Amino acid sequence: MGGPEIERLIGLLAKLPGMGPRSARRAALRMLQQPDTRMLPLATALADAARAVKPCSVCGNLDSQDPCAICGDSRRDRSVICVVEGVGDLWALERASVFHGLYHVLGGTLSALSGVGPEDLNVTPLLVRVEQGVTEVILALGATVDGATTAHWLTDRLKPLGVTVTRVAQGVPIGGALDVLDDGTLAAALRARRPS
Amino acid sequence: MGGPEIERLIGLLAKLPGMGPRSARRAALRMLQQPDTRMLPLATALADAARAVKPCSVCGNLDSQDPCAICGDSRRDRSVICVVEGVGDLWALERASVFHGLYHVLGGTLSALSGVGPEDLNVTPLLVRVEQGVTEVILALGATVDGATTAHWLTDRLKPLGVTVTRVAQGVPIGGALDVLDDGTLAAALRARRPS
Repeated sequence: MGGPEIERLIGLLAKLPGMGPRSARRAALRMLQQPDTRMLPLATALADAARAVKPCSVCGNLDSQDPCAICGDSRRDRSVICVVEGVGDLWALERASVFHGLYHVLGGTLSALSGVGPEDLNVTPLLVRVEQGVTEVILALGATVDGATTAHWLTDRLKPLGVTVTRVAQGVPIGGALDVLDDGTLAAALRARRPS
Repeated sequence: MGGPEIERLIGLLAKLPGMGPRSARRAALRMLQQPDTRMLPLATALADAARAVKPCSVCGNLDSQDPCAICGDSRRDRSVICVVEGVGDLWALERASVFHGLYHVLGGTLSALSGVGPEDLNVTPLLVRVEQGVTEVILALGATVDGATTAHWLTDRLKPLGVTVTRVAQGVPIGGALDVLDDGTLAAALRARRPS
């Protein structure tokens, strides 16, 4: 159906998250009809990003400079570190523009089921960073069993260093209706209720 | 949020059909975490396809050889041409493996609203091909007003050449429930009813 180049392109596009064989075919077709304006720029952007972007040696964020733009930004509060599971979580917090400290990307959570132990996570560099004038570590891990286990385990490691350890609140999402929420979220929101 | 390379990549991915800013970010992140196995192969596939794939000079299909694999396949029935609006339609028919003749890609439909006239479509080469031993032309155009207009107009041009002109049937899609179909489809299916 158009030769090996097209088949290969569709196969690779179909592996992108959110894409399937059908949308990959549509995307390939759209691009093939405008190779110079759509296809070659994307090919260049992919090659450029693959070449330039590396994990930040301080926090684990992905950036084309090292240390990353956040770690290198002198306006950010260096006394607070927000610990996240992955770079996607860091991006989400940055988009929300609600946090002005530094980050630390853990690279996952502890998971007995998946065989992820402490040695698989970016923990030791975090402990070293915390000892360099950090006063608070915010654990912004997912509200999953593994996330909670990891938060508990990290708290035990961080507390002896004399730093305040906090966790992001769990509760009703802003804009969320109560009747569509699961029992666990409702229970957490009720437990963590505050004076109105 | 990671430098200009990442921003640019996300912007280009978000323009793909079926993708938006959110899925583009997810795709970019997934690829950035495996640059050598995911990103560079896609960059290469895009560049290869952009270089190799061209419209077939006979039928308008996209392929890395010219004439395309279908036009060049001696096992296909050269007496029947199926006329489609776009390459996506041709791909859909090929996936279904129900047609074993040749194709002709029109490149759109006549549209007064969008200002598409006969001179904007790949019509003259079709008339030339039809005069070279073709006995039937199947019009597989969309069941839209523009599709029907184009089918009517093409029939008028093709009939004088002494060729049989047919159109694909309209009716209830296989697996489709009647109660979710629009009135137009129901009316067409009823009009085109056949002995059971």
